[in-house]
Amino acid sequence: MATQGQVITCKAAVAYVPNKPLVIEDVQVAPPQAGEVRIKILFTALCHTDAYTWSGKDPEGLFPCILGHEAAGIVESVGEGVTEVQPGDHVIPCYQAECRECKFCKSGKTNLCGKVRSATGVGVMMNDRKSRFSVNGKPIYHFMGTSTFSQYTVVHDVSVAKIDPKAPLEKVCLLGCGVPTGLGAVWNTAKVEPGSNVAIFGLGTVGLAVAEGAKTAGATRIIGIDIDSKKYETAKKFGVNEFVNPKDHQKPIQEVVVDLTDGGVDYSFECIGNVSVMRAALECCHKGWGTSVIVGVAASGQEISTRPFQLVTGRVWKGTAFGGFKSRTQVPWLVEKYMNKEIKVDEYITHNMTLGEINKAFDLLHEGTCLRCVLDTSK
Amino acid sequence: MATQGQVITCKAAVAYVPNKPLVIEDVQVAPPQAGEVRIKILFTALCHTDAYTWSGKDPEGLFPCILGHEAAGIVESVGEGVTEVQPGDHVIPCYQAECRECKFCKSGKTNLCGKVRSATGVGVMMNDRKSRFSVNGKPIYHFMGTSTFSQYTVVHDVSVAKIDPKAPLEKVCLLGCGVPTGLGAVWNTAKVEPGSNVAIFGLGTVGLAVAEGAKTAGATRIIGIDIDSKKYETAKKFGVNEFVNPKDHQKPIQEVVVDLTDGGVDYSFECIGNVSVMRAALECCHKGWGTSVIVGVAASGQEISTRPFQLVTGRVWKGTAFGGFKSRTQVPWLVEKYMNKEIKVDEYITHNMTLGEINKAFDLLHEGTCLRCVLDTSK
Ligand SMILES: NC(=O)c1ccc[n+]([C@@H]2O[C@H](COP(=O)([O-])OP(=O)(O)OC[C@H]3O[C@@H](n4cnc5c(N)ncnc54)[C@H](O)[C@@H]3O)[C@@H](O)[C@H]2O)c1
Ligand SMILES: NC(=O)c1ccc[n+]([C@@H]2O[C@H](COP(=O)([O-])OP(=O)(O)OC[C@H]3O[C@@H](n4cnc5c(N)ncnc54)[C@H](O)[C@@H]3O)[C@@H](O)[C@H]2O)c1
Ligand SMILES: [Zn+2]
Ligand SMILES: [Zn+2]
Repeated sequence: MATQGQVITCKAAVAYVPNKPLVIEDVQVAPPQAGEVRIKILFTALCHTDAYTWSGKDPEGLFPCILGHEAAGIVESVGEGVTEVQPGDHVIPCYQAECRECKFCKSGKTNLCGKVRSATGVGVMMNDRKSRFSVNGKPIYHFMGTSTFSQYTVVHDVSVAKIDPKAPLEKVCLLGCGVPTGLGAVWNTAKVEPGSNVAIFGLGTVGLAVAEGAKTAGATRIIGIDIDSKKYETAKKFGVNEFVNPKDHQKPIQEVVVDLTDGGVDYSFECIGNVSVMRAALECCHKGWGTSVIVGVAASGQEISTRPFQLVTGRVWKGTAFGGFKSRTQVPWLVEKYMNKEIKVDEYITHNMTLGEINKAFDLLHEGTCLRCVLDTSK
Repeated sequence: MATQGQVITCKAAVAYVPNKPLVIEDVQVAPPQAGEVRIKILFTALCHTDAYTWSGKDPEGLFPCILGHEAAGIVESVGEGVTEVQPGDHVIPCYQAECRECKFCKSGKTNLCGKVRSATGVGVMMNDRKSRFSVNGKPIYHFMGTSTFSQYTVVHDVSVAKIDPKAPLEKVCLLGCGVPTGLGAVWNTAKVEPGSNVAIFGLGTVGLAVAEGAKTAGATRIIGIDIDSKKYETAKKFGVNEFVNPKDHQKPIQEVVVDLTDGGVDYSFECIGNVSVMRAALECCHKGWGTSVIVGVAASGQEISTRPFQLVTGRVWKGTAFGGFKSRTQVPWLVEKYMNKEIKVDEYITHNMTLGEINKAFDLLHEGTCLRCVLDTSK
């Protein structure tokens, strides 16, 4: 390609300061160095983690930066030593890397690869600990090792999942974060068995994906819990077959669920990011075996608590990141499942916009009617 | 037997009021009713749960009562419908029942039987919701469904484990609580694998049994942590091969352990009952997979806390009651293991006394040199 080895100037949405509108800028994207991949991003969705960092509440957030981590695109060029993808490959950038070599990857117990974290955690690339993005020579930080709110981005090779080129990128971009997180929370982290009772706190994209995961796992009762009763209608399509609005009850929600289920649920999932709901989710689990999985991300500094007796009497408290999926290995597999109509993706997309409309898209995130908004980055 | 069907008058240590010396009394023990077993207790040990309730700090503690739950004896008589034991059988009373019929027992997921809890939790027997103990006609409450600080006690049939009559009762009485709790925390709850790193907080009987369990499970590094450095010498015999005294360090103990183990341990066990140590035990676990098991019982009303990020990044928080062992089924199996020299028991017994010396034995519990004190109830 003509652009290979050259700096590319393209449009990106830059977050210069917390909580102020993103600015669509001409950004310079340097060529990939050893072990790096430059990707032409075609579609990106927005997720709450983007909004959280943008809000300035994330103490580790670095500005100026290019946010975005739920996307799909095509490899434009690769740096030295990159063997697993080549220009033209269709890919999903993965904020959770998978190197297959580190202590974590080799443990067989977790998807949390440690290979590039020391760089992605501070907004730079491993090779020279610098950014590949700049505006008029001033560097712009990377975000989550993905930075997909840009027409081109540079990521580590261990953070790229090569997918079926027949997959529609405007849909499967969602397989970069929220949908796998919910499905994997059920399949990998909780390992829900047929016949189980499940409670899902929060019926956004993540909670709905938990519902779908629970349904395919054979759960019998799938109780959705949301403070917005309008969520039930959509949730039914994803497998939720009972609904509770905590606002309709005087009693704490954990007691309501325990009463509903003769002692509590087998599995619960917190898909909001609220520490008091995390406690309720644990405490509505059945004595002896109930397992609660924290999926939501709480604001920095907040803590969860409970009486230790809850655990001594057999409840288990867990969490999940990217649903426990090994990104490079399993995102392509999820794409196949979507292509075979075994998992939903289209149904989470409630809005389509352009990169230029990104600030409007962020506003939508806070509205009850939006699940995922997909941005066409070409416009 | 001549006593069958009759009230037996015998010696027992009665706790009339919290925190005042127990009184050795002539107590009347009524005959067992349907589904009940009267046991002649020969040996009983003391455990912290007895001391806790006796101290008055347990809001569910009822007085006057007969404490004690780690004991062994011989069946004196049985009530109507009792088929699994008969007079003369050697038995260990089990505070954790096993009915094999309730939702819990049939779940295959927990040892927490629910059959008699509604009675044992309030110091009475299921049949008539009354006590079998009295002094001059005034009822004395049962404790934990066992009340072993008495020459005779009455328990539910689902709370009696029949053991090999060749087993020395003055030793295997310990298999009624602390030792199985520690072993089972490792084998059943954590399921420690060969090659694991383990941290044990608190090196009393329970912590030492965890060490022994970890050693037999093939753990490589077994790090004992205690504020009393004298504990290391004994702990070595149980498998502890490294020792840390938190008082020797400026840094929080979780950081010390994380540094020692290149990121944290695979499994940790809290065997103290201290909520801040419970937090440390979780936080010293390795990201991605580290599992922490709460074994210690905290004082009523206390809470555990941590940042949810600890769980989202793969740590698991659990607890255990009686080590997850099914009492009637597995206590006899533990006795066999002891008889085959596959598990230690004798080594936990640091003191032998008589029932008459019970108050002195309670004082010993608070001294660092005592692991278990076994009382001969005939004197
Ligand atoms: N662990 C991971 O790897 C991972 C990955 C992606 C997203 N997340 C997190 O998952 C969470 C959910 O993401 P989402 O995109 O589905 O969010 P969302 O905002 O679309 O959905 C949240 C839902 O929770 C409901 N809600 C809010 N407060 C509530 C309360 N007190 N009780 C009941 N319901 C309540 C809202 O009405 C909404 O329907 C976020 O915290 C996000 O950061 C985690
Ligand atoms: N979950 C269950 O089923 C179950 C069963 C039996 C006992 N228990 C509980 O297990 C706990 C331990 O029982 P035990 O008989 O071994 O007690 P113990 O008192 O003999 O041992 C406790 C040990 O912890 C040490 N310790 C105290 N504070 C410490 C601190 N801050 N840091 C490090 N070490 C500290 C003490 O020096 C002592 O060696 C108790 O809470 C008991 O109630 C639970
Ligand atoms: Zn790795
Ligand atoms: Zn039962």
